[in-house]
This record gives sequence, C-alpha cells and structure tokens, in this order.
Amino acid sequence: MKALLIICDGMGDRLTNGKTPLEAAKKPNFDRIARDGVTGLVHTVAPGVAPGSDTSHLALFGYDPCECYKGRGPLEALGENVKLEKGDVAIRGNFATVEGGVIKDRRAGRDEYGLDELAKSLDGMLIDDVKVIFRKATGHRAIVVFRGKGLSAKVSDTDPEEVGSHIKSSIALDNSQEAKRTAMIVNKFTEKACKILDGHKANKERVKMGQLPANAVLGRSAGISEPVVPFGEKYGIRAAAVAGVTLVKGVCRSVGMDMISVEGANGHRDTNLKGKADAALKALDDHDFVFLHIKGTDEVSHDGDFEGKKRMIERIDKEVLEKILKKADLKNTTIIVTADHSTPIGLKRHSADPVPIAILGDVLTDDVKKFDERSCAKGYLGHIMGRDMMNMILDLTNHSKLFGG
Amino acid sequence: MKALLIICDGMGDRLTNGKTPLEAAKKPNFDRIARDGVTGLVHTVAPGVAPGSDTSHLALFGYDPCECYKGRGPLEALGENVKLEKGDVAIRGNFATVEGGVIKDRRAGRDEYGLDELAKSLDGMLIDDVKVIFRKATGHRAIVVFRGKGLSAKVSDTDPEEVGSHIKSSIALDNSQEAKRTAMIVNKFTEKACKILDGHKANKERVKMGQLPANAVLGRSAGISEPVVPFGEKYGIRAAAVAGVTLVKGVCRSVGMDMISVEGANGHRDTNLKGKADAALKALDDHDFVFLHIKGTDEVSHDGDFEGKKRMIERIDKEVLEKILKKADLKNTTIIVTADHSTPIGLKRHSADPVPIAILGDVLTDDVKKFDERSCAKGYLGHIMGRDMMNMILDLTNHSKLFGG
Repeated sequence: MKALLIICDGMGDRLTNGKTPLEAAKKPNFDRIARDGVTGLVHTVAPGVAPGSDTSHLALFGYDPCECYKGRGPLEALGENVKLEKGDVAIRGNFATVEGGVIKDRRAGRDEYGLDELAKSLDGMLIDDVKVIFRKATGHRAIVVFRGKGLSAKVSDTDPEEVGSHIKSSIALDNSQEAKRTAMIVNKFTEKACKILDGHKANKERVKMGQLPANAVLGRSAGISEPVVPFGEKYGIRAAAVAGVTLVKGVCRSVGMDMISVEGANGHRDTNLKGKADAALKALDDHDFVFLHIKGTDEVSHDGDFEGKKRMIERIDKEVLEKILKKADLKNTTIIVTADHSTPIGLKRHSADPVPIAILGDVLTDDVKKFDERSCAKGYLGHIMGRDMMNMILDLTNHSKLFGG
Repeated sequence: MKALLIICDGMGDRLTNGKTPLEAAKKPNFDRIARDGVTGLVHTVAPGVAPGSDTSHLALFGYDPCECYKGRGPLEALGENVKLEKGDVAIRGNFATVEGGVIKDRRAGRDEYGLDELAKSLDGMLIDDVKVIFRKATGHRAIVVFRGKGLSAKVSDTDPEEVGSHIKSSIALDNSQEAKRTAMIVNKFTEKACKILDGHKANKERVKMGQLPANAVLGRSAGISEPVVPFGEKYGIRAAAVAGVTLVKGVCRSVGMDMISVEGANGHRDTNLKGKADAALKALDDHDFVFLHIKGTDEVSHDGDFEGKKRMIERIDKEVLEKILKKADLKNTTIIVTADHSTPIGLKRHSADPVPIAILGDVLTDDVKKFDERSCAKGYLGHIMGRDMMNMILDLTNHSKLFGG
C-alpha cells in the first residue's frame, strides 16, 4: 500500500456569515473522500497552539518541533537548495532600499532586475574567518549563510520590519562569546553589503530605469540546522514531496524527502495545480509515500479573501482531487487530505483551530458526508494530534511495526 | 478581545433519577452560551484523575500541577493574604478543644469568640531559630507559617481528623535532617501553643460563656510554595480574579492575578452572586482576562443535595449569566463557562468525570443546544485537557503567539 498525503496550507477556518470557506465551496471530490473514507480533526502541533507552516509540517511528518525546530533561516536555505554544513548560521534576507541610512522600501520595490548579479557580488565574502554564502531567493528575498567555527544562532534580526527606521544592529541574545562574535560578523556583513551594493552597476541601471536601488540587505530568523533521522530511515519507506513554496520545500529537504520540481509550481494562488497533481501521481510509481503541498489556500487567507479561498478550494477539488481520484490506483493507495493549520479569513493570520482530515483507503468509514471543519468534527477519528498522523498512515498502508510481542 | 472565564466549582455530576443537576435545572442563559457558542468536555487535570480545586485550577490556568503543586498549606496561606517568603513552611491549622490530652472538638465548637486574641498570642513565637507566623483564618481555621533556614515540608499532620484521639506527633516523611528538624519544631509549637492557649483569658471567658475552650491547634497539609512564572508574564495579558473561597483565592494569588474583593462573597451557597457578576464586569474594563469563581455548586454537592445544586445552578443562570450576557460587550469579549471538576451528588466527593465547557465568541458553533454533561459531549471541541484551555482562550482572543515561522 502506498500513501498520498495532500496538505492544503491554512485551509481551516472559522465562520464568515455563518460558513467556513470549506462549507461554502462546491467540492465534490473532497466530499467523496470524506464520504467514502474516514474523517476527524487534527491539532497539528497541539490544542491551542497556532503553528507556522514549518512547525506544523514537522509535527505532521512525526518530528517534534519543540525538539527539532531550529528557526526559519535554515529551512528557507534548504528550500532554496543551499547546502548547509554543520554549524552554519542561516538567515533569511531581503534586498531593500536605504536612503540616508533610513529604510525606504523593505523589498527594493519588489523588482528583480539585477538581483542575481547583486547577489553574486556578495557571495563568497570573508569576514574574519567566516565565509558568507549569499543566494538570491524568490522575488526580493535572499539566503545568507555564515560558515565558520564557533558561530551561534542566538543573534537578533537586523530587519526592523518597518519603513522609515534604520537597519538594526544585530545583538547577542545570550551571554556566549559565540553569539557576541556572530552578531559582530552579521553587522560587519550588513555594512560591507551596503557598500558593495551601493556602488554596483546593476543598481545604477536600476536607478536609470526608474527603479529603487537594492542597496541593502535586511536579515532575520537566524538558525543553525541540526540533522534529524531522515524520513526514509525513520519509517522504512521511500518518500517524495511536491511543493512550490520555499519554506515547505525546506522542511521536506530537512527530513530527507526526494524533491520533485514542477514547472509553474510557485506557491501562489495561480500555481500549476494540474502539473503538481500529475507529478504526485507519477511519484507514486517509485515511492511509498508522496506528499503534495498546496500553498494558495493560505495566501488567500492572509489576504482575508473569502471568495478567493472558496475558489481556490474549488480549483484544488477540480484540478487536483478529481484527477487523482480518477488516475490513482485506489486499491493500493491511501489518500489523505488535510491542512497544516487554520488561517481564518477574519483574522488574516494562523490560528490554533484544528483542521479537518479525511482518509480514503482501508479504513472504518463513518457517517460524515462532507469535508469541512464541522462535518469532520463528527468523524470516527475524533480529535487527533499531528504527531500521530504519520504512524496512523503507516499503519493503514501496512508499513507499521508491531510494538511488543 | 477580552476573556471572561466563569468556573462553577464541582458543577459536573452523574445521574440522580436519570438526570444530572445541569440537565434538571432551568438555565436559559447557560443554554444560550452552548447554543450560540461551541461546546465540549474538559478533563481538568487528566482523564480518570479526581482533582482538588487547587490542582484543577492550576491546570486550567496552564500550570502543570504535577510540577508546581506544593500542597494546600501555602495556597491557603496566600488565600488569607499571608505573605510567604522563600522556604516558609505553611500549614493549615484548626483551633480545637482538647480535654485530658484527648480531642473533644476538632473545631472548638466553631465559635469564633476570642480567636483573634488567641491567634495574636501565638503569633511571633520563636522555636530555636524558627519564627512562627500565626493568623486566624475563616471560622475556626488558622494559618501557621514556620520561617527559618533549612526547613522541609515533608512532615506529617498533627491533626488526627478524629474526635477522641490524641493530637498526633508530626514525623519526618523522608530521611532528611530538614524534615526531622521541622517535625520537631512543629511538635514543639503544638506543645507551646497548648500551654499558651490553655491559660489564656480569652479561653477563660469562652468557658464562662459556656463555650468550648480553643486550647489546641491541629495542623495539616504542610507545604513550601515555589514561585511560578506569573500569569501576566506567561501569557502577556493582565488578569483579575473574583473569588470568595480561600483556597481558590490562594491559587489566583500564587499565579499573580489581581484579586478583586466583593462584599458578601463568602464561598457558600448564600454568596453575593450579583455582586460578583458586577465586579467581574467592571474588572473587564482594565483587564484582558477575568476569572470568576463560584463555590456554591460544590458546597451543595458535598452535602449530597440534588435540589440545592439544581437551585444553585438556576441562581447562577439568573444572577450571574443573565447579567453578564446583557451587560458585557459580547463583540469584544469571549465568555467561557465550565467547572473545575465534578462532585456527584451520589458520591458527595470530587470525581474524575469530565466537565462541560461552552465558549461564546469567534468560534465554530456546533449543534449543541443545552449546557450539560451529555449534551456538551457531542460538541465540536470534543474532549479537551485542562492544560490546553488557556492556550485555546488566548488563541480565540488574539493573544496567542505563533509557534514557528
């Protein structure tokens, strides 16, 4: 038995005019999985805890985020396929525009012109004995890795996350020499980067073209990744992931899943859903476990766009689930649909509300006919914890190991 | 968003003639919260664990009682507003009547005449290097605090809890020198107290008036309090408590809530419910979180009084909930009603039965129309643990912090 796990990011919700987006959407294929399968609710990290997409996916994959979550920086780096070595401090960066020392635009106008070239001009820089690895990431974003001995991730952000402010000095967040030294190196990097970027010809061209210069780098979410037992070894199965958004790709890489690229899978509402569904189906040929992630539902939620969320759910139903239910070998494949957390439209941020789950396979079916929060609350599975989901999937697909004699 | 948490002590129950008191009571306002809100059951400490009101409230406030519960003595002391210092051993005391070395009345006839004066005569006593702080508490009760270096709470009670017995010698409950020394000091205190009380003029007056002399102090529930992270710091909110009964006041003080006094709030069935409701509503003006505790439901349960419990629930419905639902700013206030444990009428003691909970606010409503044990068992929240309740409340009132990126 194989498993296909489909996670729609931030799909859970609360009520808007008496309905959740899942309740309002027309989604016969979601409902078929609920009707012919078994349902319940998942607290992905723990009841009452509003998770990020990183901690929630770690938990759903069976890794305790309280133990193994080391900050967003290294996961974003892995998501951009930057190879990390032991002790590397990884930071999320933004190209920004600074004028007279003050931040004018935190995203340098979001224009990508010349950013590749500018990134190369910062890559490989040496600060004391520490090497800087600098990569342009999606849009105006970048990954900054500090590689050297005796570094610490206990340093504060340089990004004030506010236009009109100065770039902040990074400071040590504990009393260790390592943290003090790392903060000093981060600050030297910020200064050097400004100098290099400010005089760079790519920025002169940007200005000529009427764009904002990308003349500063703001950093946040420092972290040092620590290796975990890889997914395949932990569970004795071969796993692949289809994901568009950098952070989730990073989580999948951090647990050692095979990453499958799909053209047009961009982590946005206009992502190539059909291409992702095809890729997931194909990956089932030579993997025991395939994870398919769809980000669009979260994006529309952060925008507070109820109709957009409803439409996104309907698109997933049509372009992903209909195809999968038609083409997958359902006799030998367990299909799981759920979300990594709720992002209520009214809040525009993640919440702790549990998310619906439905599993189609060799399961005890229940009376639930619809896939939504309140219907699935009546399901056979009851309330389950994210950390238990993988074990349940392994058991349903004959990959579980007996505990005891 | 603000939160008002209403806990009716011991309100949960089992069946008497086929109904629980909540099922039998006419309580339209409880039911409105269930109908318009979301419902479930709470295991306040853990499934199968019958909690005291101290451990259950600690758990509901998000403090693990297995870690931070240090016995009832210090909580009773805090409830009586006795300031405790690090290492103080606090004991619950009773004024009692002893005749010829034998206990004649464990409560000295429950008459309070002269007890203030008698208490003063014991306060400040020195035993070796240990100072005794002695305070009269409610009725015949007292708080005894031993202050000095190297004391231990691992000492047995001197109260045999039986008329006709001798006062027990306190003994060390572990092998430490500290416990042995503390037991010795407790015994010296008992002896000295008997001598002082026996010859005291207040007792001569009591006897003259035909009352029993309060000529001994019985002690139990020794504990050394350890400070916890205060509620406000733990959750980043300002919290107030309205409570009449000493133990619960002690729990609230131990976690650093602002205590609000209400005239006539006495922790009994004839408490000033309207005054408490008014005080809670007023406290919402300058607090993010207000806790309102009502003891009467537990008192009638310990008496095995089904009709009394039903009437108490109806009084709470009318005098507390009706007022709160009318006067609170429901758009900006989440209302939570629940209990700290069940005290089934048939048992006259606390049980481990989970208690119903209903939450009115920005929640996913369910089909439950009544607030009682069996109706709420069908609610959307399912079975929740007491330790998760505060996180859920914080999330529903926009005070939760994202875990992850």
